[in-house]
Amino acid sequence: MGLRIAVLGCGRIGQMHAANIARHPRAELATVYDIERRSAERVARAQGVSAAKSAQEIFASREIDAVLIATATPTHADYIEMAVAAGKPVLCEKPIDLDLARANACAAKIAGANVPVQLGFNRRFDPGHSAARTAMQAGEIGDLHQVIITSRDPALPPRAYLEAAGGLFRDMTIHDFDLARFMLGEEPTEVFALANALIDPELGAELNEVDSAMFVLRTASGKQCHINNSRTAVYGYDQRVELMGTTGMLISDNRKPHELRRFTSRNVEAGEPYQFFFLERYIEAFMAEIDGFVDCVEKGTPPLAGFEDGRRALVLAEAAYVSMREGRLVQVSEGTA
Amino acid sequence: MGLRIAVLGCGRIGQMHAANIARHPRAELATVYDIERRSAERVARAQGVSAAKSAQEIFASREIDAVLIATATPTHADYIEMAVAAGKPVLCEKPIDLDLARANACAAKIAGANVPVQLGFNRRFDPGHSAARTAMQAGEIGDLHQVIITSRDPALPPRAYLEAAGGLFRDMTIHDFDLARFMLGEEPTEVFALANALIDPELGAELNEVDSAMFVLRTASGKQCHINNSRTAVYGYDQRVELMGTTGMLISDNRKPHELRRFTSRNVEAGEPYQFFFLERYIEAFMAEIDGFVDCVEKGTPPLAGFEDGRRALVLAEAAYVSMREGRLVQVSEGTA
Amino acid sequence: MGLRIAVLGCGRIGQMHAANIARHPRAELATVYDIERRSAERVARAQGVSAAKSAQEIFASREIDAVLIATATPTHADYIEMAVAAGKPVLCEKPIDLDLARANACAAKIAGANVPVQLGFNRRFDPGHSAARTAMQAGEIGDLHQVIITSRDPALPPRAYLEAAGGLFRDMTIHDFDLARFMLGEEPTEVFALANALIDPELGAELNEVDSAMFVLRTASGKQCHINNSRTAVYGYDQRVELMGTTGMLISDNRKPHELRRFTSRNVEAGEPYQFFFLERYIEAFMAEIDGFVDCVEKGTPPLAGFEDGRRALVLAEAAYVSMREGRLVQVSEGTA
Amino acid sequence: MGLRIAVLGCGRIGQMHAANIARHPRAELATVYDIERRSAERVARAQGVSAAKSAQEIFASREIDAVLIATATPTHADYIEMAVAAGKPVLCEKPIDLDLARANACAAKIAGANVPVQLGFNRRFDPGHSAARTAMQAGEIGDLHQVIITSRDPALPPRAYLEAAGGLFRDMTIHDFDLARFMLGEEPTEVFALANALIDPELGAELNEVDSAMFVLRTASGKQCHINNSRTAVYGYDQRVELMGTTGMLISDNRKPHELRRFTSRNVEAGEPYQFFFLERYIEAFMAEIDGFVDCVEKGTPPLAGFEDGRRALVLAEAAYVSMREGRLVQVSEGTA
Repeated sequence: MGLRIAVLGCGRIGQMHAANIARHPRAELATVYDIERRSAERVARAQGVSAAKSAQEIFASREIDAVLIATATPTHADYIEMAVAAGKPVLCEKPIDLDLARANACAAKIAGANVPVQLGFNRRFDPGHSAARTAMQAGEIGDLHQVIITSRDPALPPRAYLEAAGGLFRDMTIHDFDLARFMLGEEPTEVFALANALIDPELGAELNEVDSAMFVLRTASGKQCHINNSRTAVYGYDQRVELMGTTGMLISDNRKPHELRRFTSRNVEAGEPYQFFFLERYIEAFMAEIDGFVDCVEKGTPPLAGFEDGRRALVLAEAAYVSMREGRLVQVSEGTA
Repeated sequence: MGLRIAVLGCGRIGQMHAANIARHPRAELATVYDIERRSAERVARAQGVSAAKSAQEIFASREIDAVLIATATPTHADYIEMAVAAGKPVLCEKPIDLDLARANACAAKIAGANVPVQLGFNRRFDPGHSAARTAMQAGEIGDLHQVIITSRDPALPPRAYLEAAGGLFRDMTIHDFDLARFMLGEEPTEVFALANALIDPELGAELNEVDSAMFVLRTASGKQCHINNSRTAVYGYDQRVELMGTTGMLISDNRKPHELRRFTSRNVEAGEPYQFFFLERYIEAFMAEIDGFVDCVEKGTPPLAGFEDGRRALVLAEAAYVSMREGRLVQVSEGTA
Repeated sequence: MGLRIAVLGCGRIGQMHAANIARHPRAELATVYDIERRSAERVARAQGVSAAKSAQEIFASREIDAVLIATATPTHADYIEMAVAAGKPVLCEKPIDLDLARANACAAKIAGANVPVQLGFNRRFDPGHSAARTAMQAGEIGDLHQVIITSRDPALPPRAYLEAAGGLFRDMTIHDFDLARFMLGEEPTEVFALANALIDPELGAELNEVDSAMFVLRTASGKQCHINNSRTAVYGYDQRVELMGTTGMLISDNRKPHELRRFTSRNVEAGEPYQFFFLERYIEAFMAEIDGFVDCVEKGTPPLAGFEDGRRALVLAEAAYVSMREGRLVQVSEGTA
Repeated sequence: MGLRIAVLGCGRIGQMHAANIARHPRAELATVYDIERRSAERVARAQGVSAAKSAQEIFASREIDAVLIATATPTHADYIEMAVAAGKPVLCEKPIDLDLARANACAAKIAGANVPVQLGFNRRFDPGHSAARTAMQAGEIGDLHQVIITSRDPALPPRAYLEAAGGLFRDMTIHDFDLARFMLGEEPTEVFALANALIDPELGAELNEVDSAMFVLRTASGKQCHINNSRTAVYGYDQRVELMGTTGMLISDNRKPHELRRFTSRNVEAGEPYQFFFLERYIEAFMAEIDGFVDCVEKGTPPLAGFEDGRRALVLAEAAYVSMREGRLVQVSEGTA
């Protein structure tokens, strides 16, 4: 008998989590819920479980050990609070909220509850990124000096998605801010951001949104970090991490669907385009994330990505927006005032 | 409701197949059987099914749509015949038998039965190898001239395994003979083999066995193929296929567990060792193999690797043994006389 | 009979140029000069020419068609002016001067003279970088959006060198500023810089110098560029350029001395460390630079890197220093006021 | 003053050697000779030397320290004998002769003369191949078990060349036979060859020639070696060596002209086609070959590839022809009877 997990939210990512939990050796899918009843029922049927009628039903049930929250962003903080109040461990998709104040309020509310809350920063669980960090921590590159994160989506999301996403920094870069913190091993204290709409200039005019961005971060001890983002990597989802230190460098590079290479009179060693979709690129990471969550609940190990990590990533996103608007290097505060 | 498949044989490879079937979206694990009752029960428990008491029970059951045979080699032909007699589609691990005459007799017995029999040549289903063949068939390299197959095990199997395996050519090279046929697209008509015991010279003295081998094959139209085998690739399971043609070359290369690369003062771009174990290296291939089997049964598509493919690979192994013993290029017959 | 070129300055880089000219099929080494007479004589002897007694002698000689200036930085502008006055085409090492005002004065003085002046931005001539630009200009990646330049020295230069070098941005990044302009195809109008001393913290305290830096540049049309610098890449001289566009990406990657790859139980595909020294890494570029210079003189083609390119790179270095000091994005002016 | 070398033969390869010697720091080009007077004069003019009127003039001259023989194959043995008689060290292009008996007679004639004779097996001097052997000799892969040599020309030579070349094994594979011996570290005692005309079937009918071939060799201690040849690698000159041992593997891989890689929606990491021409691919090897020759003469070090190596490669080619004709594994004799 595995950990009985309920999934709230049956969109694209909720469906994936439901399927992953269903085939996870140490977990089982208890039920699924969605504000659109038919979505929940469709997913429930596919996984051979019954759909819940309400979120409350889930929080109240004794047959459910833990919850995974993959609903719309504005509900995250509420559900986290309800789950914690019900004593149910939570794995919640990022971001906690688009509003840092709401995240802070949530932090205050759940403080001291001693119920595990894990944030859905899946990249921390990626085998390559994770092995890079392990190698660094084992001293393979001496002292870390620079981190370079390349993070590019294969294509611009639909306009409707963009309108609700809260802006590039909170929606997409938030993963990179988290990865930067994960790799740097200490808090960035300064942030610089520069961004504009290159792919779709109308984005800028109509939504005040950007699609291409570059960031520089620095920690108190002087470690430097660069992040670059784009919404249009036609060669596939581009996800690289480079760690440069005094005695070596580590690169967690992109992964191809298979290792066929082509050699012609035009070019050689040509590989298959990278995975196009984040669900495929990070499939192992999403499974390992569930693994880690089961460990949190069963063994009491602290989550690899916790609530405070989710909040800190938001603080960086906020600081980055200030930097972009004011064209200056911004000092990063605790973000709680 | 998926295709209800029973697994016969609960050794290492049977366990893997049982788990793969259990989580396959279009199949379900009906039951498992093993001559050692406790093995069957352990696997049944792990997968949440009940163990069968006998193979006969499986062939007789109306609740079972198809069987996967992963028992000891000497039972393969018998079980294939029983399954076909019972009208149950079969997915059988290689080889059909260590004795070509027995395979021929089995062929005669099941001829005309119109029950799908698929052979466990998993490499045909590997995403990289398969994409190479598809690209070749699409004309990407013009006319095929040469095939180079590198196939090396990470380590010598235990003595007990080797004693029962029937010799390197029937146990290990059989996969490469099949892959050669799969890629060449026509029958090899000539075979040359050279082999000796380099890793463990005592193998040669005591078991009359070899551990390192090189082969050259040629088809009637003149296409050439080289296979090399070793039982000791310390850098991981080495599985490469190269297709050389008039307008290009294709290489299906080895795959690493992830894409971390290390850069130090000693060397650069150093990757993680290849998957060590064939179950890990070919995990996607084994899943796709089940996929293909379900298609055979449900849609009536011919198996990508059928009984005759299993028999032809044996014919090549036999011819290779003659070549090795006599030190000459051997003409390959139909193998049925 | 090739173009007769005199080399001024017989330090490390002057020696290399003298040797390259001596074996260039369309050039010949006329003479060499150095303020240290013995240096000049040693190099002259090695190349089978005689040393000049003074720079004036060179500018006055009818036997000399052109000059290559590889003397100490403070003499560059003077020698450029003298060469132009004498009607001798010039290939001058970077930078023009550490003081932008001096470079501007020099520009004013040589304006209208119609004597070719080429700047020693060797990276523009590198086969890989150059092929990247050609591919981009041919439309292979659609519209350019982002440029990423990684530029890291293998080791910290000696303290004496650093004291005279004029600071990281003018000494080392100057090459990257030029490469950024070369690739962006339009002027950067905004610069951000962040730098500190990570490798040798005493550098910061004693020389007010930095050894690790990150930059972000943007052009008027919104193209973004990141540069990162370090003085300590133990795995070899790290020189990469990445061009990201709407329909593809191009990477001009590092080059190994040869293509031996090692496979062991610890790692696979491990390559030989990159060239350690810039003379080795860019050997083809330095030869092509001479080639380009001969073309300038003989065919009247404009230099691939001209005086104004040298001045613009200085303008960017100056703006970067302002940015670093003031912690803000700086608007780049023409730099001539 | 460097070693004064005369070049006999001003065809494609003689021209290259003349140019390499002319710019070699420890050698100088003394003169050139060709049976076609105008060829010699053209090359002499290009290199700034005067052409010799006859070979005899060269062997008699006191101003010449050594000779490089790049004339037509049938003259090689004669010129070697004449040079040795004149006490002039020789660097002779392969093969010694198309007729093994002539090579044996030459061996007998020059025996005991103590004049260095180096054979033009340039691949022994290739930085990658050479580093592979050095690593193997340093114990990096434990005991060597298998050698795989891939050796493919980019395109079929003209018919006239093929008519005079003496057959694929003596013209092209001779390099691979030598490389096999160089890497195996002991004599192959058994050879198997299989070859046919795949690219141009008329070759087979008209010239009794082949264009695609596969070989298997074995040494007395059991080491195995595979060679494959083709005359049509459209992706460039394909030259790879793989050394497989008990504790690792080494691959000396192909080299691209530069390291630009392309990423599009069709494929990723696509590199520039390999060098097309052997002069470009092995440019460093040809320079190192001159280097080694100067060492032989000046320091008395034995040549890395000597006369006996040239003879042994011929012995293997002869044995391979027997194997191909008779379809059997052939024992390799000393070749001197």
